[in-house]
Amino acid sequence: MIDLEVIHRVQETLIARKDAAPDSSYVASLYAKGTDAICKKVAEEAAEVIMAAKDGDRLHLVREVCDVWFHTLVLMTHFGIGVDDVMMEFRRREGISGIDEKKSRGTK
Amino acid sequence: MIDLEVIHRVQETLIARKDAAPDSSYVASLYAKGTDAICKKVAEEAAEVIMAAKDGDRLHLVREVCDVWFHTLVLMTHFGIGVDDVMMEFRRREGISGIDEKKSRGTK
Amino acid sequence: MIDLEVIHRVQETLIARKDAAPDSSYVASLYAKGTDAICKKVAEEAAEVIMAAKDGDRLHLVREVCDVWFHTLVLMTHFGIGVDDVMMEFRRREGISGIDEKKSRGTK
Amino acid sequence: MIDLEVIHRVQETLIARKDAAPDSSYVASLYAKGTDAICKKVAEEAAEVIMAAKDGDRLHLVREVCDVWFHTLVLMTHFGIGVDDVMMEFRRREGISGIDEKKSRGTK
Repeated sequence: MIDLEVIHRVQETLIARKDAAPDSSYVASLYAKGTDAICKKVAEEAAEVIMAAKDGDRLHLVREVCDVWFHTLVLMTHFGIGVDDVMMEFRRREGISGIDEKKSRGTK
Repeated sequence: MIDLEVIHRVQETLIARKDAAPDSSYVASLYAKGTDAICKKVAEEAAEVIMAAKDGDRLHLVREVCDVWFHTLVLMTHFGIGVDDVMMEFRRREGISGIDEKKSRGTK
Repeated sequence: MIDLEVIHRVQETLIARKDAAPDSSYVASLYAKGTDAICKKVAEEAAEVIMAAKDGDRLHLVREVCDVWFHTLVLMTHFGIGVDDVMMEFRRREGISGIDEKKSRGTK
Repeated sequence: MIDLEVIHRVQETLIARKDAAPDSSYVASLYAKGTDAICKKVAEEAAEVIMAAKDGDRLHLVREVCDVWFHTLVLMTHFGIGVDDVMMEFRRREGISGIDEKKSRGTK
């Protein structure tokens, strides 16, 4: 298994971009446009995950999942949420009832 | 920073569930329903991420991002894709042009 | 061409359901659950439109588009918006610059 | 109540654009890009409906619902499906069990 630390490095870069000029990078421009623009990207990339899955195109699916995770990281960083907060939530679910924790919440 | 290995453990569990009876767990039932059912969950959780962001509810946002990552892991596992494949994609983007790699792809 | 008045009739029924007990119908239960529940259905049905299109299944696509339009009507009725408001918006776009009105808005 | 015929006129225009050069209009360029590009727009506009609803911005909601209906019309036209096919589906549901037809389909 490879090192997952790349996710921490990605978020460190995303944090550094928060102080950058809007036209200095793709991410800086997203921050400047605000919550709705970042959310639109999350929706768009989720749709692309679905289309790659429907195509059965595994290489494409990897790229699109990466895009969804990346843009949720942008959204989290925009709201001051760390990768570790999500990891803690994964661990909490492990502790309570395993990965099927959602089942315990009922139909939701 | 906390250990990211929980993601590997989650996927190991997801892999183990592939051989389980459909009614044995939430995840086993999702696999049994197939690609469309898993994709629907990805779409639904992405919508919940957006709604939590619009509410400015950070605790809710953490849970919903966890749900999106979890269901993309289910989809990946359904297609035989590993967490490491996504990590490799993140690293590839680091190598080429940093996290703003999408910019280099143009408007996409 | 067939009569489009069915859309008005659907909304009249949706308006009537606003005063009904939450457990009296699917729609009444959606109103009771509130905006987030209705929005989740819009997202879910939009995902199903995409999956039907990817399957190239025209009969399925008709049903899913109907579901999206139906749930946007539920959302509109929840907010006191009439079908005619959307028709007026379509007409406004006809008046200004035809159906390609979005182009005139720039990249959006 | 106002005339719903604008929807038929919109689709007639959308049909006419199918033979147009890709760079002649926004819609012609969408057709040329194909199913995935149109589906992405449906997902994006559905996300904007959700965000307008969360903002409680009724004027914005009208515009975004119009955008969703418009892009589903583009997708339908791309697949040779008419507005009347969706109207027939609405009528079929009226005939069977009213607008709550989905309930009769079970949890779906």
